[in-house]
Amino acid sequence: MASSTVVKELRGLVAATFTPLTPEGEINPSLIGSYIDYLIEKQGVKSVFVNGTTGESLSLSVEERKRLAKEWCEKGKGRLEQVIVHVGCMSLKDAQELARHAATIGADGIALLSPSFFKPTNADALRMFLQEVASAAPDLPLYYYHIPGMTGLNLDAKDVLEGIETQIPSFRGVKFTSTDLRDLGQCVSYCRAHRLSVLYGVDEQLLGALIMDVQGAVGSTYNYLGRAINHLLSAFEAADLDRARKIQFQLQHIITFAKKHGFDLTVNKQVMCEVSGLPLGPPRLPLLRCSQSQALPIAEEIRKVLKDH
Amino acid sequence: MASSTVVKELRGLVAATFTPLTPEGEINPSLIGSYIDYLIEKQGVKSVFVNGTTGESLSLSVEERKRLAKEWCEKGKGRLEQVIVHVGCMSLKDAQELARHAATIGADGIALLSPSFFKPTNADALRMFLQEVASAAPDLPLYYYHIPGMTGLNLDAKDVLEGIETQIPSFRGVKFTSTDLRDLGQCVSYCRAHRLSVLYGVDEQLLGALIMDVQGAVGSTYNYLGRAINHLLSAFEAADLDRARKIQFQLQHIITFAKKHGFDLTVNKQVMCEVSGLPLGPPRLPLLRCSQSQALPIAEEIRKVLKDH
Amino acid sequence: MASSTVVKELRGLVAATFTPLTPEGEINPSLIGSYIDYLIEKQGVKSVFVNGTTGESLSLSVEERKRLAKEWCEKGKGRLEQVIVHVGCMSLKDAQELARHAATIGADGIALLSPSFFKPTNADALRMFLQEVASAAPDLPLYYYHIPGMTGLNLDAKDVLEGIETQIPSFRGVKFTSTDLRDLGQCVSYCRAHRLSVLYGVDEQLLGALIMDVQGAVGSTYNYLGRAINHLLSAFEAADLDRARKIQFQLQHIITFAKKHGFDLTVNKQVMCEVSGLPLGPPRLPLLRCSQSQALPIAEEIRKVLKDH
Amino acid sequence: MASSTVVKELRGLVAATFTPLTPEGEINPSLIGSYIDYLIEKQGVKSVFVNGTTGESLSLSVEERKRLAKEWCEKGKGRLEQVIVHVGCMSLKDAQELARHAATIGADGIALLSPSFFKPTNADALRMFLQEVASAAPDLPLYYYHIPGMTGLNLDAKDVLEGIETQIPSFRGVKFTSTDLRDLGQCVSYCRAHRLSVLYGVDEQLLGALIMDVQGAVGSTYNYLGRAINHLLSAFEAADLDRARKIQFQLQHIITFAKKHGFDLTVNKQVMCEVSGLPLGPPRLPLLRCSQSQALPIAEEIRKVLKDH
Repeated sequence: MASSTVVKELRGLVAATFTPLTPEGEINPSLIGSYIDYLIEKQGVKSVFVNGTTGESLSLSVEERKRLAKEWCEKGKGRLEQVIVHVGCMSLKDAQELARHAATIGADGIALLSPSFFKPTNADALRMFLQEVASAAPDLPLYYYHIPGMTGLNLDAKDVLEGIETQIPSFRGVKFTSTDLRDLGQCVSYCRAHRLSVLYGVDEQLLGALIMDVQGAVGSTYNYLGRAINHLLSAFEAADLDRARKIQFQLQHIITFAKKHGFDLTVNKQVMCEVSGLPLGPPRLPLLRCSQSQALPIAEEIRKVLKDH
Repeated sequence: MASSTVVKELRGLVAATFTPLTPEGEINPSLIGSYIDYLIEKQGVKSVFVNGTTGESLSLSVEERKRLAKEWCEKGKGRLEQVIVHVGCMSLKDAQELARHAATIGADGIALLSPSFFKPTNADALRMFLQEVASAAPDLPLYYYHIPGMTGLNLDAKDVLEGIETQIPSFRGVKFTSTDLRDLGQCVSYCRAHRLSVLYGVDEQLLGALIMDVQGAVGSTYNYLGRAINHLLSAFEAADLDRARKIQFQLQHIITFAKKHGFDLTVNKQVMCEVSGLPLGPPRLPLLRCSQSQALPIAEEIRKVLKDH
Repeated sequence: MASSTVVKELRGLVAATFTPLTPEGEINPSLIGSYIDYLIEKQGVKSVFVNGTTGESLSLSVEERKRLAKEWCEKGKGRLEQVIVHVGCMSLKDAQELARHAATIGADGIALLSPSFFKPTNADALRMFLQEVASAAPDLPLYYYHIPGMTGLNLDAKDVLEGIETQIPSFRGVKFTSTDLRDLGQCVSYCRAHRLSVLYGVDEQLLGALIMDVQGAVGSTYNYLGRAINHLLSAFEAADLDRARKIQFQLQHIITFAKKHGFDLTVNKQVMCEVSGLPLGPPRLPLLRCSQSQALPIAEEIRKVLKDH
Repeated sequence: MASSTVVKELRGLVAATFTPLTPEGEINPSLIGSYIDYLIEKQGVKSVFVNGTTGESLSLSVEERKRLAKEWCEKGKGRLEQVIVHVGCMSLKDAQELARHAATIGADGIALLSPSFFKPTNADALRMFLQEVASAAPDLPLYYYHIPGMTGLNLDAKDVLEGIETQIPSFRGVKFTSTDLRDLGQCVSYCRAHRLSVLYGVDEQLLGALIMDVQGAVGSTYNYLGRAINHLLSAFEAADLDRARKIQFQLQHIITFAKKHGFDLTVNKQVMCEVSGLPLGPPRLPLLRCSQSQALPIAEEIRKVLKDH
């Protein structure tokens, strides 16, 4: 297959995008074009991870996810480096349907988390689940999205990787969202040996992952802090650890400040609205929109702390 | 609305049904007719709760859930007292779609658990979610399915009930699956005052709920232990507490024995196959079929302990 | 040994006592005499479980625990039916020292919870720990205090009991503080067969345990709600389930109300001060005294709800 | 106070020592001399953290802890750079007693974790607890030992630090044992500004903490992997990140390998016996000695992986 020989490596900063909703709570794909403008022009972020946890994908129907993915691919074409479509959900059939669809709209890859209501019996079961989804879109690069804090999965990501490159030829790497850098390091070792990628997902400790040699990062704060974190990446690449650390500490301060104000997905979305000016709307039920007064001080702190970036 | 004046009260034993799958893992509705025969004739169980957690509903697509619900309603018509269709899932849109469908197939009621990937911000948010689903099938009795051990929800069921009867006119009660009998008792108090039902869902401590005055029970073990547990119910109603306790202890022994053998949903399903003789098939991924050797000793213990029922 | 043939059975209500402290945070044994008066005269409670979790024993030194235990035994002599001294702590040596001491002061029994910082490897390890403590006071009835919500122990109490009567001749039963009535029922089955006692420790669902056939109850609320709960016990013994349930629901309402006001050990102690009038003082660090305004509405609700008892 | 002006900074590798026991389970201080020889000569480790969690201190009596601390200080005098005595326990009185004692035996500092059975109400309560202990040994450098995975404490270490330098003049820093590098980074920021130290305690991801600028590390694996990890520290200081990472990955491989073999404190202690040849004995109840066959493959893997160090 010619295409697989020229697979673009996924690296650098990837924004885990929010899903634009109308004030009435319906999806609002019309905003996606200006969302992409904002990411590229204001944050210097050129790849996106759509319909992930930040995108509230589990609260959307299969049809809604398809419409959103299609819009991201169409509007991103020629502008974004990569559009990774998250197809993870509780049901194998739905995930396969979403994977099949992603292959038809020009997505650069698919990613999926583990079902979490019924959890895989062991690493074999999860690998089989991933394999069944991959079989619905065998030419699309596939990434495993490891996020045990949300799924409650008690499995090392490394155990899921074991042998996966032969079982799933389209497998390309792991998005690793956990503070466990032992497991992360073991994944990096493994992925290096098999030409796979590791991207990190805990924005507030990215530097600890960079030194473990990850290739990139996928996160929600890169939607509005991408410019600053790109400076962190550059500093790290230039071996200027002091500067990289300084920027990491700034982000840590912001997240700590936000947590004191009850930071969660609804607040996060509202912060993005405040910082970017994009009217992304409320979250979908069962989440409730947070009050503006919760998000404003955080947006203000961001401006203050990051004014030099 | 005339229909609401003749709502049948849901009471007694309700089997939370398993979903029949083919050996290849596709749904197998053709088995539902004989499943119903078995429940009625061998277990004396006359109501079912379909597409719940025992039914692996979260692992099924919306279309699969519809086909199964339809079959249960059609085959159960005139034979089963009540068919309650569980429509809970992660996405509001899907739940509404399933509720709408349930209204067209003659279901006796719908039930739903809380979304668990994104959890409701508070009791208000969950009530609003339930209300939005109810609005898609306003004439169908609706039950809230409280199962914090699976959803991870940290909310008293009682707080969800507060004022629900005015907010959701079709609301009829709660399926309460937790060992917290304080919250259960508070729900019973509330439901009595508002003519709502409380059904209990932790089979192995049903007697503790009966003395708190619940009206019935929904559980997976009633699929194969219904006859014995009906004897427990009769004994309790006849105020023969010693006999009721004796049967409860027998069930507790069985569950404890099963837990030593790794009791989980996949083993539970296999035990049902062994005891009933119905070829219900494997579970759906991400669950893996258990070995027969795990289920056989449990089925044997059931036969031994319950030989007098 | 003659004494063991006349062991008094522990049954009925047992108050898990608070530890009186001076305003400066030192233990205040001088209050224990009037504490006993209050329990007997106002609450009709005639047995106590001292230096348990309600008594903040883990925050006390070995010497302090000895002084308190001695005072309870001396002042309770001839007045209280039983004084059970809790000797559980993190260190085997300390527990042995406390057990040895309890034997010299006329305690009616000792009880201990599992070490929780380092948790027993399995049920065997815990039984060996209990045995080593028992060996320091071989003539004193010994009870295992099962409270997984505090210790984090993931072991069925039933598994700890298995064979314990031969391993520890002085073993007399279990204080069971968990909402898991399956495990409770299995303990009752076992204890009946070996003439051991089961006492229940989750006050707000005592009725669910009574129907499983426990012999008594140990709890903190019996310090100030003993009179009402004694009525619950009488109603249950007289097979008046409606009345027993009514009282249980009253207690459930009180606890639910208290939880809305942030009920914890510090509030619980202050509620006892308000209801009893005994100046029991603040808790010991690392707990902080709660404000009076947190406890007053709860004490008021207690008076309102229980005015008929 | 003259002494405080010459406080030695705690940095580099610090071994969290195991407690030597006789085969009968009594403490065995006679081994401490050769333990110190081993650390200095074979591992190049010159500071120790005694009676901590690795040392099973919570399973020891106050007297036993004093005898051990004294022996470490006496035998370490003039040979070890620093002997930090952990005095944390459940009871304030015991912690004060241990702190007072530490001041008399020439300890270089004391450290303590939070009480975990009764948890501090908030950061203020924990700071007050630390302050009360410090007041018993006001001239001894004091460190807060943050280990939420063991204590279950849900508090940022940073919140505990806030203002502590004025409240506790002898406060010198924090031993941070958590994978949360956001909180770690915030602690480093704070400690830098107040001339306090941060030492890291999750050995398998030390490199992630080094890049956040910690001054040293305290851990159990430095007992037998100190030589290799000293190479990691040197490589990091020399800005040879590739080499530092390589050694970190080796340690991660070892810990991952050990976890597959059921790594816990009892296995850890046995691994130390195998690698060092020191007969440290079994753990204290409620822990049970592991079989040699569990520890041997791990010791073998260590030799294989680390043969170049």
